[in-house]
Amino acid sequence: MKRATLQLDPRRQVAPVRPRLFGSFVEHLGRCVYTGIYEPGHPTADGDGFRTDVLALVRELGATTVRYPGGNFVSSYRWEDGIGPVEQRPARLDLAWHSLETNAVGVDEFMRWAGKAGIEPIMAVNLGTRGVEAALDLLEYTNHRGGSHYAELRRANGVDKPYGIRMWCLGNEMDGPWQVGRRSASEYGRLAGQTASAMRRFDPGLELVACGSSHSGMPTFGDWERDVLMEAYDQVDYISLHAYYHQAGDDLASFLASAEDMDRYIDSVVAIADAVGAVKRSRKKIMISFDEWNVWYQRAAASVPPSGEDWPVAPRLLEDRYNLADAVVVGGLLISLLRHSDRVTAACQAQLVNVIAPIMTEPGGPAWRQTIFHPFAQTARHAKGVVLDARPAGSTVDTARFGEVGAVDAVATWDEQARGGTVFLVNRDTSEEAEVTVEVTGETVEVVECATVSGPDPYVDNTLDAPDRVRPLPNDRVTRSDTGLTVTLPPVSWTILRWAAA
Amino acid sequence: MKRATLQLDPRRQVAPVRPRLFGSFVEHLGRCVYTGIYEPGHPTADGDGFRTDVLALVRELGATTVRYPGGNFVSSYRWEDGIGPVEQRPARLDLAWHSLETNAVGVDEFMRWAGKAGIEPIMAVNLGTRGVEAALDLLEYTNHRGGSHYAELRRANGVDKPYGIRMWCLGNEMDGPWQVGRRSASEYGRLAGQTASAMRRFDPGLELVACGSSHSGMPTFGDWERDVLMEAYDQVDYISLHAYYHQAGDDLASFLASAEDMDRYIDSVVAIADAVGAVKRSRKKIMISFDEWNVWYQRAAASVPPSGEDWPVAPRLLEDRYNLADAVVVGGLLISLLRHSDRVTAACQAQLVNVIAPIMTEPGGPAWRQTIFHPFAQTARHAKGVVLDARPAGSTVDTARFGEVGAVDAVATWDEQARGGTVFLVNRDTSEEAEVTVEVTGETVEVVECATVSGPDPYVDNTLDAPDRVRPLPNDRVTRSDTGLTVTLPPVSWTILRWAAA
Amino acid sequence: MKRATLQLDPRRQVAPVRPRLFGSFVEHLGRCVYTGIYEPGHPTADGDGFRTDVLALVRELGATTVRYPGGNFVSSYRWEDGIGPVEQRPARLDLAWHSLETNAVGVDEFMRWAGKAGIEPIMAVNLGTRGVEAALDLLEYTNHRGGSHYAELRRANGVDKPYGIRMWCLGNEMDGPWQVGRRSASEYGRLAGQTASAMRRFDPGLELVACGSSHSGMPTFGDWERDVLMEAYDQVDYISLHAYYHQAGDDLASFLASAEDMDRYIDSVVAIADAVGAVKRSRKKIMISFDEWNVWYQRAAASVPPSGEDWPVAPRLLEDRYNLADAVVVGGLLISLLRHSDRVTAACQAQLVNVIAPIMTEPGGPAWRQTIFHPFAQTARHAKGVVLDARPAGSTVDTARFGEVGAVDAVATWDEQARGGTVFLVNRDTSEEAEVTVEVTGETVEVVECATVSGPDPYVDNTLDAPDRVRPLPNDRVTRSDTGLTVTLPPVSWTILRWAAA
Repeated sequence: MKRATLQLDPRRQVAPVRPRLFGSFVEHLGRCVYTGIYEPGHPTADGDGFRTDVLALVRELGATTVRYPGGNFVSSYRWEDGIGPVEQRPARLDLAWHSLETNAVGVDEFMRWAGKAGIEPIMAVNLGTRGVEAALDLLEYTNHRGGSHYAELRRANGVDKPYGIRMWCLGNEMDGPWQVGRRSASEYGRLAGQTASAMRRFDPGLELVACGSSHSGMPTFGDWERDVLMEAYDQVDYISLHAYYHQAGDDLASFLASAEDMDRYIDSVVAIADAVGAVKRSRKKIMISFDEWNVWYQRAAASVPPSGEDWPVAPRLLEDRYNLADAVVVGGLLISLLRHSDRVTAACQAQLVNVIAPIMTEPGGPAWRQTIFHPFAQTARHAKGVVLDARPAGSTVDTARFGEVGAVDAVATWDEQARGGTVFLVNRDTSEEAEVTVEVTGETVEVVECATVSGPDPYVDNTLDAPDRVRPLPNDRVTRSDTGLTVTLPPVSWTILRWAAA
Repeated sequence: MKRATLQLDPRRQVAPVRPRLFGSFVEHLGRCVYTGIYEPGHPTADGDGFRTDVLALVRELGATTVRYPGGNFVSSYRWEDGIGPVEQRPARLDLAWHSLETNAVGVDEFMRWAGKAGIEPIMAVNLGTRGVEAALDLLEYTNHRGGSHYAELRRANGVDKPYGIRMWCLGNEMDGPWQVGRRSASEYGRLAGQTASAMRRFDPGLELVACGSSHSGMPTFGDWERDVLMEAYDQVDYISLHAYYHQAGDDLASFLASAEDMDRYIDSVVAIADAVGAVKRSRKKIMISFDEWNVWYQRAAASVPPSGEDWPVAPRLLEDRYNLADAVVVGGLLISLLRHSDRVTAACQAQLVNVIAPIMTEPGGPAWRQTIFHPFAQTARHAKGVVLDARPAGSTVDTARFGEVGAVDAVATWDEQARGGTVFLVNRDTSEEAEVTVEVTGETVEVVECATVSGPDPYVDNTLDAPDRVRPLPNDRVTRSDTGLTVTLPPVSWTILRWAAA
Repeated sequence: MKRATLQLDPRRQVAPVRPRLFGSFVEHLGRCVYTGIYEPGHPTADGDGFRTDVLALVRELGATTVRYPGGNFVSSYRWEDGIGPVEQRPARLDLAWHSLETNAVGVDEFMRWAGKAGIEPIMAVNLGTRGVEAALDLLEYTNHRGGSHYAELRRANGVDKPYGIRMWCLGNEMDGPWQVGRRSASEYGRLAGQTASAMRRFDPGLELVACGSSHSGMPTFGDWERDVLMEAYDQVDYISLHAYYHQAGDDLASFLASAEDMDRYIDSVVAIADAVGAVKRSRKKIMISFDEWNVWYQRAAASVPPSGEDWPVAPRLLEDRYNLADAVVVGGLLISLLRHSDRVTAACQAQLVNVIAPIMTEPGGPAWRQTIFHPFAQTARHAKGVVLDARPAGSTVDTARFGEVGAVDAVATWDEQARGGTVFLVNRDTSEEAEVTVEVTGETVEVVECATVSGPDPYVDNTLDAPDRVRPLPNDRVTRSDTGLTVTLPPVSWTILRWAAA
């Protein structure tokens, strides 16, 4: 039996819970768009061709924002291919995913869907094959009222009111050798600064994201962030982080502790950004947009794009099947993101449907929830108010990759108005239960709800035919003491514990 | 009473008076074009929509060249928006001035106007959002006889003969953070060199201007010029200088001595350019195009562009109202430019109509002359022949910004053919008269004309209703002696003294 | 009498003979395309307007590949100008050669011609005024089966099957001040890497050529190659070399030894490329594409492009007339290329027709062979199998430019299957004959054929009226000994000696 203690003090706060922390990502990749969110002719499709079964799951998931249209896809995308009469739109080779893009869905369709889903769009501009001019044109198309060429074009396309998109990504993973139009850090930094500066002449209030490294293992990691920010610090608001995790071999223990890596990655980029700010004598702080994160078995066959003469439309690609351990890791990563709410003010799980996604669909068939759906949905729904400054202390587990780490990881939020709090917990021990004592300074505590995602086999997954094998079930092993609550967590489990101040 | 002496020797010459020194500037900004030079429906409008009252004033002003179409405007301009049937031209957001550009006036309209005004165009290409290809296309459109795509397009648009534009600006103020497409000095230098080199393949005789610093106070001033010229020395003929002056607080004395700053700025850039030439072992000298200069109250409300959702067509913007002191300063700046005629071989007062301009208009109403109109018009008309190598010596005034400077500043020209000379003088003392003795070596001198712009209140201005409060009046306080002429200048005054050799 | 010995051992091999060593070059320059390969209305023109007399000579020449469409021409070329209905194609100014390009021939016409000529195309993309996007569009147009915009456009233009072009040049001579869009080495290297990397996402198997120096005398030679390869080593397969030779003054001896320069040039670039590979710890070797080489009297009047208002269609330009000495030099350069077959795996004689070309035409009139046609044709036909590792030893001649060099230069190939070999020889002595002994280890040798290009006057040329003055004639001065063959070469001569193993 592992043991840990979490001491909460509602006055010791990290930052407000940012709604944008629960963002997602829709890329023109595989079946995320086509037969994912969009499938005219599907029994549940609405008049616009959007699957309402998927829309219902997106709302249940609680995604707040969606980044669009890429990802690697954006780096050779011509946004104007996707507007106007569908039958006149050109089909294009998508070099990022070796697929054929019909352009049946473009910015107007996406925005209509976003409205139905109740999500805020985060739009990416192409800084691979294009630059300032095309970014300004798109911005005018989406955000200008009327009277000018592209604004009138949008109106002619049936959208009278501008979309008012606030948050924009300046390209995608521009440090990656795989990226169309990859640049050096300084060149990209200048292009990002140029683009940002020009976009702000249209609207100074836009929130702009510069590309950080594609992941923390890139050979240029760190230098890239510094060089980009040296060029563009004053022009941008965010720098992006991307990270994907998977179990290497049979090393379940390290995999369960993936949040340790995320913690360090965030802390590192914050330090690099603040160091640039110091050199620049700037009072401004660059925020983190962790706009791609998830579990992803990148080396699996499902992740290998088509090749040769095969340029399919919306192939099955990156359709990872998630198990219980993956769900526990996703829950742990959400704990890491929440813990850094002072600097991580936007994050996007990659991706929303079918492509390394919480929601799966069959063409013409049902939509269902993967295991990772549940911790995301619960966290998005119940992380309210402020994040508290508290980390669990107690037993450790040994990991090959991170050494000794806490067996239990957790983060807590506190909603002053509702006078209630929520604790999100993972037990990262692969075999032992963990008993966690939650103490709340100055409050008498009552349990509202406790639910746990666990099971005897960490590798059990949800499938089309058995879509509910892994899901949260009530956890009745909670007891109340003088100083707080004690909850017992099964091995390899994720738990939400909601309490109210008496 | 201040005193000064000016010793002239017609054999000691600086350089010929260059007609291009009296250039002006028409940018798509505020009401310079629309309701400025162009206002169809105005009572004086000709068949092309050009105000003939403005045309008459432009001719009276004596502007020799006009830079067009920007300025900051050019950095996101697509020149082809402004050609062809007007009703098919797209309206564009102008991000430089937060205005809506209808494109009713484009290069063909401007060239037609320039023909009527008798001015030489100086055309600027967009090196902000664009590069070599668009510059070449415009050059082909304006300067190629026929047979090729864009030349035939011009002919189809009704202009059979090519315009033969000689002088071209390679972008505008590319060092400015406000500039769409701002670049580093080396990157801009390479782009300018590339563009220049390609344009010369069409016509080696073009005269090409690289952008220098936006003003001498830029943090990169000096380094910028050096780095740009290190990249583009062989490809360009000119480097640009821009400077605007205004009275800071109640410091009239420093303001009246603004030409001191212009002198130093020119000398500095000449030194920097020649130093690059030395490193390059080049015999070529880079000339100065002082293609934006004037008095401008940049911090005044009139200079604040619209913002937010307000994207007006041709708003009232930068419509500075000039007083007597401003006119004396403009006269002094012209003295500085003339004095540097060996290196400053082109200059453009910014701008021509309504926008920090000598000529003002009311939509549907009259056009009138600001105070600064007069020294410009007189200097442009009477500076003929060669500039003489002479500076006044005598009493000084104390200024907060420049220390001790001559109370009187002056420059003299000599027209060998007409056997006559002209002296341009300013008295920069704020309260005392100045007596100036002009001695001419080897010539017996007769007064032809003496006129002075002055008045009891340096802050009196011209207005729509009282457009002639400040203007040149005959000055009868000139006496002739054995060695020359003596003229008395009121405080805060500008004077032209024309003489003939007996 | 000069003497030399060449010791051959069929087991000591350099590399296979690469068919691409016998490439040629068709640029939109002068009359290479129009009235060269293409002349509708010519008595021999086929239904597509191609001259069948020229096609026959191209086949006789044995050119294996043709680089297209430039050369300098490509650096402002818009490939889409050359597709679709001919009457809708725009006429463009070609700034490279101050000519008017009608675009009557474009990529589809060229590919049709290449099919008829049996040659493999080497396509160049415009990295002067354009970048990644246009390169990808052209690649899609030429190489993609169908379904996407540009592939369907090709099909709509009547070409159902993709061309499958394998080898692509990433721009042309981007270090040259004369080049539209010239860049610095690092900037070009990054652009080339970007473009290559994006093109490989379409097809990883493409063979891509980065531009080396325009010639070995460029001030940036060596540094250019290193800097470009430091940026693009992993993305490209080839680096290009260009070299043109001519007789300077009356120095025939140095001219005849031009292959010495080519040898050194190749060796230098190989060393530079391998040094970059060493720094990068790469096992990959960069190959040499010697994609412009020939004799060219660059300073002759025939090489001066039109100027001023003169923008002719297909003018007579670079129509060098070749003499015997030129043919001997061309033969010598082919020996140098063959000798380096381990690294020079592609080469293009510049150019194919009319423009410094082996084949000449008269508009409406005949086509004929210049002197340089013959060594190229013979070498292309008879260099089969493998290149042997052998260099002649013996008498020397003194040259002003290269010092003491072998009087005889030679290279040998061996065709294991046919059990026969060929020796290519030049006698570079200007007055003496040379007696060459060819010894073949382990084989008994029989003469199959010996032919020589020579004559009493090294400056005699072929002309329209006397097109056969210089051509190979049987050489009967070959004797057989115990150890091999002995052949006598006239001064200033090129010889092919074919033998068979008994």
